[in-house]
Amino acid sequence: MSEELSGNVLVAQSGGPTTVINASLAGVVTEALNHGCIEEIYGGLNGIQGILTEDLVDLAEESQQVIRGLRYTPAAALGTCRYKVKRSEDFDRILEVFKAHNIRYFFYIGGNDSQDTADQISKLAQERNYELRVIGIPKTVDNDLPVTDHCPGYGSVVKYISTTIKEMALDHEAVGQHDFVSIVEVMGRNAGWIAAGATMAKRRNQPEDPPHIILLPEIAFDSERFLYLVQESLKKNRYCMVVVGEGLVDTDGNYVAAASQADSFGHAPLGGAAEYLRQLVEQRLGGVRVRANKLGIAQRSAAHCSSQADNDEAYMCGVAAVEAAIAGESDKMVTLVRTESEQYGCETGLTPLSGIANQVKPLPATWINEDGVSLSFQFHKYASPLIQGEVEVPFENGIPEFVTISGNQIAKELAPYQLG
Amino acid sequence: MSEELSGNVLVAQSGGPTTVINASLAGVVTEALNHGCIEEIYGGLNGIQGILTEDLVDLAEESQQVIRGLRYTPAAALGTCRYKVKRSEDFDRILEVFKAHNIRYFFYIGGNDSQDTADQISKLAQERNYELRVIGIPKTVDNDLPVTDHCPGYGSVVKYISTTIKEMALDHEAVGQHDFVSIVEVMGRNAGWIAAGATMAKRRNQPEDPPHIILLPEIAFDSERFLYLVQESLKKNRYCMVVVGEGLVDTDGNYVAAASQADSFGHAPLGGAAEYLRQLVEQRLGGVRVRANKLGIAQRSAAHCSSQADNDEAYMCGVAAVEAAIAGESDKMVTLVRTESEQYGCETGLTPLSGIANQVKPLPATWINEDGVSLSFQFHKYASPLIQGEVEVPFENGIPEFVTISGNQIAKELAPYQLG
Repeated sequence: MSEELSGNVLVAQSGGPTTVINASLAGVVTEALNHGCIEEIYGGLNGIQGILTEDLVDLAEESQQVIRGLRYTPAAALGTCRYKVKRSEDFDRILEVFKAHNIRYFFYIGGNDSQDTADQISKLAQERNYELRVIGIPKTVDNDLPVTDHCPGYGSVVKYISTTIKEMALDHEAVGQHDFVSIVEVMGRNAGWIAAGATMAKRRNQPEDPPHIILLPEIAFDSERFLYLVQESLKKNRYCMVVVGEGLVDTDGNYVAAASQADSFGHAPLGGAAEYLRQLVEQRLGGVRVRANKLGIAQRSAAHCSSQADNDEAYMCGVAAVEAAIAGESDKMVTLVRTESEQYGCETGLTPLSGIANQVKPLPATWINEDGVSLSFQFHKYASPLIQGEVEVPFENGIPEFVTISGNQIAKELAPYQLG
Repeated sequence: MSEELSGNVLVAQSGGPTTVINASLAGVVTEALNHGCIEEIYGGLNGIQGILTEDLVDLAEESQQVIRGLRYTPAAALGTCRYKVKRSEDFDRILEVFKAHNIRYFFYIGGNDSQDTADQISKLAQERNYELRVIGIPKTVDNDLPVTDHCPGYGSVVKYISTTIKEMALDHEAVGQHDFVSIVEVMGRNAGWIAAGATMAKRRNQPEDPPHIILLPEIAFDSERFLYLVQESLKKNRYCMVVVGEGLVDTDGNYVAAASQADSFGHAPLGGAAEYLRQLVEQRLGGVRVRANKLGIAQRSAAHCSSQADNDEAYMCGVAAVEAAIAGESDKMVTLVRTESEQYGCETGLTPLSGIANQVKPLPATWINEDGVSLSFQFHKYASPLIQGEVEVPFENGIPEFVTISGNQIAKELAPYQLG
């Protein structure tokens, strides 16, 4: 057991929001209140940016209703940033702010860039003999953080996309149209985790179940083969549902969606991978009707269709981060560990931050079927537990009612700071 | 009171599906079972097309679970069609099929094309002295049928779109990005009812609430004014959320999305109004990041986020259609009638089919604010009751579980028929 460390907590959120990043925040705040050695609980506005500019708010002052409401409120209640801390004066400043507000516990909820930042802050504090415990909390819809079995945020986006695909497929079947191709573009610039997740819409994991073709960034796009598969599906199913990850690349490793940027006529770039495929099918397959959907940011903010399992795990990560720090851990990220047994179970673990930073976990190649456009039963087994249960979101007047923090700002102690 | 008419019921669905067209079907079947004069309850597969080809199924044989499940199953359980009955031999055939199966009650759930077909069938039966009662049941997400206060299907699409916009806006605010424009394309080729509905996402109907700009097909698109409004919104709100109806037209009345079809380089047409606007903003406003979403068919099939009020009314229309026919009415469409009082109430009425066919109800001009990109409180008052309540959809293994009819086909009595 380590010695008790008295002082204040600072928690911040970073990167692209998810539907459960606020659940992790709620976990941190709720657990922090359980420990006498923690004096104040501060939130940094807009991630590291607000820490640099000393924009801190008092989270202990927030009402219980608000902290409870964070459990189902999407996006990021504290705001996030994509500010990349690189300059040494930035790190000096962060430590100055920490000292000025007696921050002894720092929790950073984010993806791998954020974990890298947390790692560097932790190492600097050690170097300067400033006692600080730093714990990272994973979050990303992309599910591409290493070590952790999966990332909070991923299960919910898979649930939303699968639900949407299943509903759309019923519509396509009802209309009963011959030669109709429906293309849905989902997120995932570097890995196909999200696109792969759409396979959960399949009723029995059979090829004839929609979605019929899943295009992953992991498999170089071959237009001839794609058009062949579309035609085969049209023959068998009358319609063809295609899911495409936004990061689909050609054999040269270039994004297909960027293809028209090279267009010598100076046309604006295409609107994405789905739009590219729509044009391709329309131009190459006569008499085929094509519709493209682009779910965009809707998919990562759809709290109304988010996964209870994902939400619970995100909250659990927040709680585990505080427990670990209190127990003397530092410079670690919380991980989700799948327990080995017949039934799915999930516990938290810890891993050094240095092993997370700038690493990416690819979709295992063995989980992609030989056809390159569908997923194996191993993927189904992996993803199924992550989408279980429905988060209950309160509706008021017909639309969801979310919470916002009142965000009472802490008095600034330092001179203003110029962001780089 | 009219004389009791003994015979069989035929019900069919037509046009683009909605999340509640099956609720109307459930209403017809459930109410039909209450009346002794009704002998059999048949469903026509794929709308009028299946009636022509004598593809009828026995709906009384379906389990209670399935009929109950239709209340929350999107799309159209019987299938729909867009087959336009025009030829006189088609009408002759329909009557032949009706006679062969002793159909005395015909219920057609659909938009104005379908009501036109129903009207013609009704008139032909009268002319030929075949006793038949024909009642149309309204359905369309477009909300553009005349006479009826609103159309089953509309409230649910508004609920889904408003929910999505509200969730996306939280994401945009959390990221806190300057100069970010988010464009969401929604359905509505001829009228702005759906795009207008996105205003329900506004918390207090204030201009600074997202969506900031609603582009309606009713207002000719002026790109200079649009770019000005985007810039104003960016100044005030840091980001700008635009909702655009797919049917946005320029001052010449041409779809903006079709603009590039005139492109002399032979490029494929643009992917829609949102994509058009995305390119416009990117080309004209420097340093602005733009993202486009196209919800497409997802919006009309999103049972997981559908309106209980809408669903109840759709069911009620099915019940009312049977009651009216039993009472001797024919050649009418069921309407929804808003009761005049402080609190919203809704009853059903009847209107001649001939007054529905090929008529379109425009969004009242007085409900569009002078700025042309926002809606008045009258619209809010109109739409608010239609999105109340959340339909509970059962989930199994993390995704919605819907029903399908087993569809036991009735033996064919006639020779095959060649569709025109």
